Amino acid sequence: MKNTMNTTQQQFASDNYAGACPEALQALLEANDSGHEPAYGDDRWTERSSNMLRELFEIDCDVYYVFNGTAANSLALAAMCQSYHSVICTPVAHIETDECGGPEFFSNGSKLLVAEGLSAAAQRGKLTPEAIETLVTKRSDIHYPRPKVASITQATELGTVYSVDEVRALSWMAKKHKLKLHMDGARFANAVAHLGCKPAEITWKAGVDVLCFGGTKNGLPVGEAVVFFDRELSQDFAWRVKQAGQLASKMRFISAPWVGLLDNNTWLRNAGHANAMAQRLYKGMLQIQGVQVLHAPEANGVFAHLPKALVDALHAKGWKFYQFIAGSGCRFMCAWDTTQASVDALLADMHSLNV
Amino acid sequence: MKNTMNTTQQQFASDNYAGACPEALQALLEANDSGHEPAYGDDRWTERSSNMLRELFEIDCDVYYVFNGTAANSLALAAMCQSYHSVICTPVAHIETDECGGPEFFSNGSKLLVAEGLSAAAQRGKLTPEAIETLVTKRSDIHYPRPKVASITQATELGTVYSVDEVRALSWMAKKHKLKLHMDGARFANAVAHLGCKPAEITWKAGVDVLCFGGTKNGLPVGEAVVFFDRELSQDFAWRVKQAGQLASKMRFISAPWVGLLDNNTWLRNAGHANAMAQRLYKGMLQIQGVQVLHAPEANGVFAHLPKALVDALHAKGWKFYQFIAGSGCRFMCAWDTTQASVDALLADMHSLNV
Amino acid sequence: MKNTMNTTQQQFASDNYAGACPEALQALLEANDSGHEPAYGDDRWTERSSNMLRELFEIDCDVYYVFNGTAANSLALAAMCQSYHSVICTPVAHIETDECGGPEFFSNGSKLLVAEGLSAAAQRGKLTPEAIETLVTKRSDIHYPRPKVASITQATELGTVYSVDEVRALSWMAKKHKLKLHMDGARFANAVAHLGCKPAEITWKAGVDVLCFGGTKNGLPVGEAVVFFDRELSQDFAWRVKQAGQLASKMRFISAPWVGLLDNNTWLRNAGHANAMAQRLYKGMLQIQGVQVLHAPEANGVFAHLPKALVDALHAKGWKFYQFIAGSGCRFMCAWDTTQASVDALLADMHSLNV
Amino acid sequence: MKNTMNTTQQQFASDNYAGACPEALQALLEANDSGHEPAYGDDRWTERSSNMLRELFEIDCDVYYVFNGTAANSLALAAMCQSYHSVICTPVAHIETDECGGPEFFSNGSKLLVAEGLSAAAQRGKLTPEAIETLVTKRSDIHYPRPKVASITQATELGTVYSVDEVRALSWMAKKHKLKLHMDGARFANAVAHLGCKPAEITWKAGVDVLCFGGTKNGLPVGEAVVFFDRELSQDFAWRVKQAGQLASKMRFISAPWVGLLDNNTWLRNAGHANAMAQRLYKGMLQIQGVQVLHAPEANGVFAHLPKALVDALHAKGWKFYQFIAGSGCRFMCAWDTTQASVDALLADMHSLNV
Repeated sequence: MKNTMNTTQQQFASDNYAGACPEALQALLEANDSGHEPAYGDDRWTERSSNMLRELFEIDCDVYYVFNGTAANSLALAAMCQSYHSVICTPVAHIETDECGGPEFFSNGSKLLVAEGLSAAAQRGKLTPEAIETLVTKRSDIHYPRPKVASITQATELGTVYSVDEVRALSWMAKKHKLKLHMDGARFANAVAHLGCKPAEITWKAGVDVLCFGGTKNGLPVGEAVVFFDRELSQDFAWRVKQAGQLASKMRFISAPWVGLLDNNTWLRNAGHANAMAQRLYKGMLQIQGVQVLHAPEANGVFAHLPKALVDALHAKGWKFYQFIAGSGCRFMCAWDTTQASVDALLADMHSLNV
Repeated sequence: MKNTMNTTQQQFASDNYAGACPEALQALLEANDSGHEPAYGDDRWTERSSNMLRELFEIDCDVYYVFNGTAANSLALAAMCQSYHSVICTPVAHIETDECGGPEFFSNGSKLLVAEGLSAAAQRGKLTPEAIETLVTKRSDIHYPRPKVASITQATELGTVYSVDEVRALSWMAKKHKLKLHMDGARFANAVAHLGCKPAEITWKAGVDVLCFGGTKNGLPVGEAVVFFDRELSQDFAWRVKQAGQLASKMRFISAPWVGLLDNNTWLRNAGHANAMAQRLYKGMLQIQGVQVLHAPEANGVFAHLPKALVDALHAKGWKFYQFIAGSGCRFMCAWDTTQASVDALLADMHSLNV
Repeated sequence: MKNTMNTTQQQFASDNYAGACPEALQALLEANDSGHEPAYGDDRWTERSSNMLRELFEIDCDVYYVFNGTAANSLALAAMCQSYHSVICTPVAHIETDECGGPEFFSNGSKLLVAEGLSAAAQRGKLTPEAIETLVTKRSDIHYPRPKVASITQATELGTVYSVDEVRALSWMAKKHKLKLHMDGARFANAVAHLGCKPAEITWKAGVDVLCFGGTKNGLPVGEAVVFFDRELSQDFAWRVKQAGQLASKMRFISAPWVGLLDNNTWLRNAGHANAMAQRLYKGMLQIQGVQVLHAPEANGVFAHLPKALVDALHAKGWKFYQFIAGSGCRFMCAWDTTQASVDALLADMHSLNV
Repeated sequence: MKNTMNTTQQQFASDNYAGACPEALQALLEANDSGHEPAYGDDRWTERSSNMLRELFEIDCDVYYVFNGTAANSLALAAMCQSYHSVICTPVAHIETDECGGPEFFSNGSKLLVAEGLSAAAQRGKLTPEAIETLVTKRSDIHYPRPKVASITQATELGTVYSVDEVRALSWMAKKHKLKLHMDGARFANAVAHLGCKPAEITWKAGVDVLCFGGTKNGLPVGEAVVFFDRELSQDFAWRVKQAGQLASKMRFISAPWVGLLDNNTWLRNAGHANAMAQRLYKGMLQIQGVQVLHAPEANGVFAHLPKALVDALHAKGWKFYQFIAGSGCRFMCAWDTTQASVDALLADMHSLNV
């Protein structure tokens, strides 16, 4: 292949526009060099990365690798729900808005119960204990699917981060009503980087039963980890993963990059950098006339209302970013590789194109 | 990471024990170097590899990338079946024996109808037109799921390859009964290398509606292509893939290695090499006392009965290979990277350990 | 059996508290007297009732009998949707609130998209063309299930009835966006009795593709009819019904009562009577101090806010009725057999127990 | 309705060609006379029939009513299996051959593992402990669905009846491998009538975990009972039934006929009569030249090979019966209402039409 693609401008549409980080790639290459390896997860890299995750979380948890976040969340939820059960989440939860009915498909029908009227918390994408209780106690008849799980996203889809106390309060309420607590951690690394706490503190020590630990947005080419702190929930999960088409035959290519990510805290540095770039972007945007930032970013995204003319002008200039709700709401995501120069270039265009 | 894993002995358990081939890896690295890329398949590598597949098959087919063979087969079959339909296959079909009910899961219940009494053909893992007709005409009442698809594996699970005439005869019978023809091509490359025909000849020109083109066993780290020659069948398939957790966010890491594989016919050389190694192994095994090879290999695997003592001795020596049926039947698979030295080392041990 | 149960007071909790009407029972008894009959719908009663439905609707529609409304709706929707599609409905739609995820289960994951902000129409339980368009045009990406069906309930869950013009406007919008139009007709008879139109006018002539025609609430012991006006949608539907456990072996016991219901317009008289009783109850309730009726009933239910003390007193006195929403909202349903005396007794207690 | 259908000749195609027995109908009519009853199973008849079943089985079992046998079996199996589990059964099991993939549909993919090579037992439709062990121990890898249930049909699809000792041996083997034991009792009554034992002896005392007790073939218009002896298996089963469209709104019309059937041992007399008619038919057929009866009937069906000319002649004369396997095998089923005259008429035609 001679005609390599040109290198492209960095964008802010999604943190999955970024490639793989050097550490993950290096591990992938080393894994490839190791010759023949048993397939389906019986390789040395899978064992090693799983042990590294157990060390990281300071607990003997069950670890499974799947290909993407939709699969991770859907399979984790299916492991906690029968088809006639239901899952409580926010209106902006990725499982509700961006997985094309994946959770319902994998569980064969479990309904998502969307918390409503969350007021202040809702505007920042967080579920509340009160919302859980309202939904659980609203109905108990057999004509309505019985709630079995509360699902929260950490960091949230609106760039905020649950504090340890918030997660504790949620798990307390979940346990009160015999719900399991699921954490969609597509950007778990960014949340931990923001909180500065140990991973154990914000997960199992705070009552989380299952964590879907996102690797892709953090710098992997492909792959997420499903981490069961409640190991009863992972009974026969290997079969579930296999049947659902989520068992990699050459598993080392999924697990070795995790070794690269976990080694020397690369995952945390990657996330910290992305968070810092979001802070830089946020501070810059506060200076842009007519731009209304929703809240100070806690993870790696900035959410703001921009004048429509500015949105159009930025798009015309080639900038990519999502409009996350109807109207003028825009989302700017920073990745592990987002450079200060890219942030500054975007800010410069925001200034110059704003009229 | 300092303590790299030791390089291991080559094995004959599965062609997915091998790593990724240099061409695929190189393309992956180049794709990573290209900066930010749109996610979910809107990248330049996905477009390019899809066009390369269209050129390879000399037809404007629809191409989708998924993570593994179970997903490829299951989603393709689900696109052709409702839950109350059925799929005709052989007793040794991978979809029947090694996907843990994946096809039934993705289709929400489509039954696999296993052809019986295939006599000579069955011993070589092939479906026959007669077997299709027997199953289709056996029942037509609503208490039995209605056949909608005939599925064949090319190369078969027993290392044989359907000729163009055989596929034509199967598709003729399938069409006669309004069935679609699905080809599980986990080792499609090995079949083409054996046949020496154009890919078009053994697929759509012979009546195949959907091909699951295996990349992993051919030298990719991860990823298969679902190729729809009958483009009506791929209506809304993108949604199906997304819901089923098979849409890669950083798709370039799946598609770029395909570019590496397809460029300069690497895929065909990889397969041809694996086939040649199987031939070498086969010829050597013919010389081993007490070993009964089932048939001359046409693809990259040798199937043989070995004396139990020899099986045990080989295992004890560290050799890995599958016992594909009850009793003494053994399968030896060669990969794109299997060396003559590895084949010869296995043969030497077969000689020396045979008593 | 000597010790027969005592006859109980008539209630207003649901129209399915009533038994079977004499005409339906008589037909059931006659069907039983006819000796041996072929099973699974190949009997004379099934043929006859299906033909009567075709005559009633003045079109050569496809008719299937299933056991209850959840199955009728769920199977009809599954026939129009793949798992990655979605169904538009109101927040009070029975398929959303009272089928325990049945539609998601039968379709293997199709999501219900609940129309929001319906303002005036919503308060009366009706879907609007604008709401359809809003939901269809909100998203078109593959991360969201693609809308394929708009579902309306006739009469609605809040006791209102869509006019012919309203259904036409809905189907026009549905067709504009290539959606099918499904009518949940659990109380279709009550709607027709209210409208005074021909069944054809409010269904296929107005653009309805599939009607789930409720028999149980209208006086059958068990059984609903799924009527396909768009006969392409019913392809292989017999297999779907069978697989889903909805094919009665002794079908005549489902279909013969339909003959009894359809003969001599019993179905319409039953519905008209129930509607009249709701009117009587409504007029009486207008006289009760502190009772706020939501709207004049158009079908067989009265929806009203009652003082909490009155609700409690009525319950204490043994009256059964549902509280259809949080707070003081109450639903009083009249059945085909509700007597004036029962209505008057309830009204009398409302008067006397009101303080 | 004036033009009542003519009464038809009794047939031997299926025991569900018969109507409802007088006792069941009488109970249905009485239930209808009882006025308004709470819906969805909160009625007095459902409580009463459930208690009668608990008395009959001499244990505090959980009882649920569903509409037909496919639903009963499929829901019971789904309660014991996840989608990636499997169910062991015979090649002639109704769940395998006549439910159109219902078990796979309700469980979202659980595979049926068909026992092979059953030799003598297989010819009589029985599963054996050895067959269970063979299938359980054949594979234990994650590429194959893990067995969780052994399912037997009592009486079998070939008219034989498992003895108490046989069921005990099967349950011993099932328990050894941590399988649950499911009994498809579509003709459970005929089996008990044959064995002359107490229902408890052949079910939970012999290790059966769940029984699908067939009512329809025994004289009900519609309805089967799912009886959980292992009450842990029925957790949330009410939700499962509701979601799957199997919860009757006017439940009394399903449960009251059960009261009629259970009262005064009507169920046992019905079954005993059908069995006796099969014996009469069997003895008569032994006298017919060229007819080869497979085995002495133990339940209510006779299975025999008939000369093809005789089969054709009988069909031409209007007799209905199934050909249960390819070729000349015929099945003649007797029902609760089959008369001696009907049996004799069939035998007379067999004699006279035989050449």
